[in-house]
Amino acid sequence: RINGDRLWDALMEMAKIGPGIAGGNNRQTLTDADAEGRSLFRTWCEDAGMKVGVDKMGTMFATRAGTDPDALPIYVGSHLDTQPTGGKYDGVLGVLGALEVVRTMNDLGIKTKHPIVVTNWANEEGARFAPAMLASGVFAGMHTLDYAYGRKDPDGKTYGEELKRIGWLGDEEVGARKMHAYFEYHIEQGPILEAEEKTIGVVTHCQGLWWLEFTLTGKEAHTGSTPMNMRVNAGLAMSRIIEMVQGVAMENQPGAVGGVGQVSFSPNSRNVLPGKVVFTVDIRTPDKDKLDRMRAKIEAEAPKICDALGVGYSVEAIGHFEPVTFDPKLVTAVRNAAERLGYSHMNIISGAGHDACWAAKVAPATMVMCPCVGGLSHNEAEEISKEWAAAGADVLFHAVVETAEI
Amino acid sequence: RINGDRLWDALMEMAKIGPGIAGGNNRQTLTDADAEGRSLFRTWCEDAGMKVGVDKMGTMFATRAGTDPDALPIYVGSHLDTQPTGGKYDGVLGVLGALEVVRTMNDLGIKTKHPIVVTNWANEEGARFAPAMLASGVFAGMHTLDYAYGRKDPDGKTYGEELKRIGWLGDEEVGARKMHAYFEYHIEQGPILEAEEKTIGVVTHCQGLWWLEFTLTGKEAHTGSTPMNMRVNAGLAMSRIIEMVQGVAMENQPGAVGGVGQVSFSPNSRNVLPGKVVFTVDIRTPDKDKLDRMRAKIEAEAPKICDALGVGYSVEAIGHFEPVTFDPKLVTAVRNAAERLGYSHMNIISGAGHDACWAAKVAPATMVMCPCVGGLSHNEAEEISKEWAAAGADVLFHAVVETAEI
Ligand SMILES: NC(=O)NCCC(=O)O
Ligand SMILES: NC(=O)NCCC(=O)O
Repeated sequence: RINGDRLWDALMEMAKIGPGIAGGNNRQTLTDADAEGRSLFRTWCEDAGMKVGVDKMGTMFATRAGTDPDALPIYVGSHLDTQPTGGKYDGVLGVLGALEVVRTMNDLGIKTKHPIVVTNWANEEGARFAPAMLASGVFAGMHTLDYAYGRKDPDGKTYGEELKRIGWLGDEEVGARKMHAYFEYHIEQGPILEAEEKTIGVVTHCQGLWWLEFTLTGKEAHTGSTPMNMRVNAGLAMSRIIEMVQGVAMENQPGAVGGVGQVSFSPNSRNVLPGKVVFTVDIRTPDKDKLDRMRAKIEAEAPKICDALGVGYSVEAIGHFEPVTFDPKLVTAVRNAAERLGYSHMNIISGAGHDACWAAKVAPATMVMCPCVGGLSHNEAEEISKEWAAAGADVLFHAVVETAEI
Repeated sequence: RINGDRLWDALMEMAKIGPGIAGGNNRQTLTDADAEGRSLFRTWCEDAGMKVGVDKMGTMFATRAGTDPDALPIYVGSHLDTQPTGGKYDGVLGVLGALEVVRTMNDLGIKTKHPIVVTNWANEEGARFAPAMLASGVFAGMHTLDYAYGRKDPDGKTYGEELKRIGWLGDEEVGARKMHAYFEYHIEQGPILEAEEKTIGVVTHCQGLWWLEFTLTGKEAHTGSTPMNMRVNAGLAMSRIIEMVQGVAMENQPGAVGGVGQVSFSPNSRNVLPGKVVFTVDIRTPDKDKLDRMRAKIEAEAPKICDALGVGYSVEAIGHFEPVTFDPKLVTAVRNAAERLGYSHMNIISGAGHDACWAAKVAPATMVMCPCVGGLSHNEAEEISKEWAAAGADVLFHAVVETAEI
């Protein structure tokens, strides 16, 4: 068994870096707080006897050597970056859980044939730089390095500039490493495990996603002196599209979601009808055909809504991953570990995207989940119990050690 | 007749301060650009022989002495502050038009019984600090000075702090001055004069306004892993309120408008359902009872929309003025001047709010309007012709001189 207290202490220590405003964290990608979190993590890895490499996307790889020089490593990780108002566990639990696996192996003197690489993927959240899972996406060949470097935050700063600025531009080619397997431990971020009173989620699939960024062009005009029939109201068009997306999600129940988290009005002045409205629709479902049907429906309806109001319209897909089926052998290893350790468990589909989804493109991959209170995540009030945290790390430890071969 | 070239040159000179990004201006209230515009205006006033006073709200009063020491002054002005993406004429034409009236009086050696005070009201736009017409509102006793000083911009800076910072905190008590009459010259900001091919708008009324700031409380949650039936979606509630406001405006046609120019989502991240949504509804009509009925309907419907989604709701009226009827004698003076000068003219109701609306609370007041291209205002592309600008200033000159008594 892993050391639950040590894991919890590490989580609480990391949470001190980039504190939020309501008990959670704001440690967004490539900020000074991100750099500080990375340094702490590197120190911990080195103290545990690991050698830390960094690639050109800023992803960190801490290696515990194996006994067979020809055996490919097993990668175990997640991400240390957070949402602007994020929780203390989303991603962090997976990185520090992997570190705890290595620390426990050290304690017990366990040697494995395959090396173990504790991994901190850069920019998983996609909050500051869209899309999410950017570094693992480049690693898996889904994006080019140039594309990633050119991604901009809301202030127009690029990923490439900011990676250099915080001092975490590494020298390894992205994706040069080959994996024997990839494991990721994460909080569920949804309500199912808690409702079903299960401690472990055996993650069999991950739902697919489209992020559709709409840019609507209205006519900037005075809210008082512009008659209703002369308005080209991009904000009204946005409202109708948000309602339409809600309808598309509802007509695809069960097993589909759709919503809007980000909106920007220009010039965003109380007495000016917006000349430009930009917002991102997020739709997801585990069924690939359904996902594409939902996208097609939204992209068919939105122009009609805009045309009726004379509003100009463009849409760009700025984030996408297809539904993923995780590796059956690894899924079985996770289930067997939970069984052996006596933790209640169930199969689950990940509602959120994870670096594991991209890793699955280049290696056998899977995930372990633990519950979170009220299914709440992407919220500073995100909470888990120490027991849940420890249980998932235990399962991770057993599944990893089994796969790494003693 | 006034000097149309000189007026135009002054407009173009002022437009160099706080340039926009598309040919207009960003010279928002109490910014460094505002301070620079004020300095230039003070220089021009002093060069025209006027003495410049400043009150505790930062409003500037440039006085041309009259011949009768007991006669109250005639105030003529508007505002030099702009929207973040504003035009070169909104407000500026009224201030520099008033200056041109004085310059022309100087050229012609005209002496009047009543002094003339060219006025630059502070924070007319209300873009940076809500509400609009803040300084004239304090002048007319509609707001206290403390209320005004405490108004915050989006960065949380207060009006009081920023007024001091830019060095334009004056020593005059606000509202201490007494007015014989108030005239304001402004572009129409709407499409009527151009459509009717009239050069002069004789402004008989101004429509009333409510700014209703809604704060909706949702549950910040992951867009992927939060099932549709567990969402508390404040953005969806906002969309439905925007649609409802549109409906309320439409069912009150003709002669009513309603819309939303400002929206803010928190945390405004693509994969987070907003925990908080703040937006401002702007409704206007010249009919006081209709205005209050529209507000009542919106405030009755909005909570139902929110309740149906479980979204928390509060609303604050952050801006208001009642419909105004301008002084019949001054209105007649404007109409007679247009008639005498041979300009085509028509009666018009102001769609926008103006400092004249508050001045009308404490003195006889009226306005003169000229057309603007396509009815466009609160847009950098706002445009007028030099001929229109000169015609309105001519009418202002004649009406002011007549009222000031030679
Ligand atoms: N796990 C997680 O929240 N990842 C961010 C990408 C997504 O929105 O699913
Ligand atoms: N004239 C003008 O645009 N004033 C700003 C206040 C308003 O929104 O009516």
